[in-house]
Amino acid sequence: MLLPLRLIPRLASCVPRLVLRRAPLLPALAMASAYSPGSGAERRLLFRQLFEKESSTYTYLLADVADPDKPAVLIDPVDRTVDRDLNLIKELGLNLVYAMNTHVHADHVTGTGLIKTKLPGVKSLISKASGAKADHFVDHGDKIHFGNLFLEVRATPGHTSGCVTYVTGDADGQPSPRMAFTGDALIIRACGRTDFQGGSSDQLYQSVHSQIFTLPKDTLLYPAHDYKGFTVSTVEEEVAYNARLTKDKETFKTIMNNLNLSYPKMMNVAVPANLVCGIQDPPPKI
Amino acid sequence: MLLPLRLIPRLASCVPRLVLRRAPLLPALAMASAYSPGSGAERRLLFRQLFEKESSTYTYLLADVADPDKPAVLIDPVDRTVDRDLNLIKELGLNLVYAMNTHVHADHVTGTGLIKTKLPGVKSLISKASGAKADHFVDHGDKIHFGNLFLEVRATPGHTSGCVTYVTGDADGQPSPRMAFTGDALIIRACGRTDFQGGSSDQLYQSVHSQIFTLPKDTLLYPAHDYKGFTVSTVEEEVAYNARLTKDKETFKTIMNNLNLSYPKMMNVAVPANLVCGIQDPPPKI
Repeated sequence: MLLPLRLIPRLASCVPRLVLRRAPLLPALAMASAYSPGSGAERRLLFRQLFEKESSTYTYLLADVADPDKPAVLIDPVDRTVDRDLNLIKELGLNLVYAMNTHVHADHVTGTGLIKTKLPGVKSLISKASGAKADHFVDHGDKIHFGNLFLEVRATPGHTSGCVTYVTGDADGQPSPRMAFTGDALIIRACGRTDFQGGSSDQLYQSVHSQIFTLPKDTLLYPAHDYKGFTVSTVEEEVAYNARLTKDKETFKTIMNNLNLSYPKMMNVAVPANLVCGIQDPPPKI
Repeated sequence: MLLPLRLIPRLASCVPRLVLRRAPLLPALAMASAYSPGSGAERRLLFRQLFEKESSTYTYLLADVADPDKPAVLIDPVDRTVDRDLNLIKELGLNLVYAMNTHVHADHVTGTGLIKTKLPGVKSLISKASGAKADHFVDHGDKIHFGNLFLEVRATPGHTSGCVTYVTGDADGQPSPRMAFTGDALIIRACGRTDFQGGSSDQLYQSVHSQIFTLPKDTLLYPAHDYKGFTVSTVEEEVAYNARLTKDKETFKTIMNNLNLSYPKMMNVAVPANLVCGIQDPPPKI
């Protein structure tokens, strides 16, 4: 049966944002213990870092396992590894609430659209400034709640005009040290390029120095990519050793203007797809 | 000048083991804050997971950053990533004490010998049962101290006859939850092959069930390899979901006997090299 055009599911809608959806608990084995490497209050957080080898992308899974619903969010999922991620989420008995991106990626196709086709209750989330379609849009200063945990949104444009960094909450009961998911604004000892998608080296420098380097120095930094096998850094380390962002702004801009990088091979596929959660609406069947 | 033969540095020696060497602190920037994702007592531990993409090998860096000397150990370093690892150690102001292996690897050349040529104070460490040369040999039940932290050695043969698992200490002030570095005895949802290097599926089954699955269920499991982008698991998860080791022993043996894996392409290079810390003694110059 062909659906009338108005009933074809659309991935884009603008609904009131940041209200925790309490979907029913998935019928999966509910693990009793916590998974956070922390202890005490931190055991509320289950945290997993997942790697997609072809594009060297990190996907991050965070869940509140002290909440009976075990609500979870997935940051920067990749289309190729959606089945792996959803299987893990099922095994851990988590209830995925948000599939979210730090920005419109140019090097891989996001998994958010595919996740929504497999778990229709999941909502996609991205910054309003990204210009992409999604169920929820966030702005600087918004909070994304899942159970009793939350992520704070910090606008960190410069790699793209819509880049944000998600930072764990600054409040009692939130993870300590804090964790920042920096996307491509900051990668370990480096940063994302600034030569397309509204990129600006001037803006990136300002973003990192005002929004990331001002976090507590023990804040754990988790980037969207790593190409050398690093998994995490800290604010203190990057302030001391980042090869680009430790320079003064003019030197930084000169470095960024002379990277001479080739055109991303996936860009013409990835960017249009990622503007619509990785999956274009199916063409209407008339 | 040619050194007399007796002065050519030899990588193999049998010296009294497991006495913490307190080498002078490296003249590097000493970071004030801790790097562990834990809090409170756990902040004593600095922990880093590092990845070598070609062989999909994880190298683990652990240090006691509450000790003024910041003593560190490196588990399963890879020759190709030694410079990356040593640079990180230098940046973090750590003092590398032991470069250690879980076993004689067949898929990559260990970095321990190369590390010793670059940092002559570092001692190599491996199980006595491995048959490999090293500065220190460990047996089941031994403790490897670095500062006020320690790793407990558990014999987990079966992938090779000399495999061990290193487990963080079970005592006040040690990381909580515990962390187990399982080498190839257990990899996430799977395990190492058992068809060469003294391998035995019978023995591997016994090792994992008696030495790893008996750890507290929230113990974090860090394998030597992952091929799917997972970075960590837990005892509870593997007891529930390991595709091989959740079976009964006879089924497990049948699975292991029918893997039909190809001969490891690096084996003829890696195993002889790894039996001597990754670097053969230089030929005597006469």
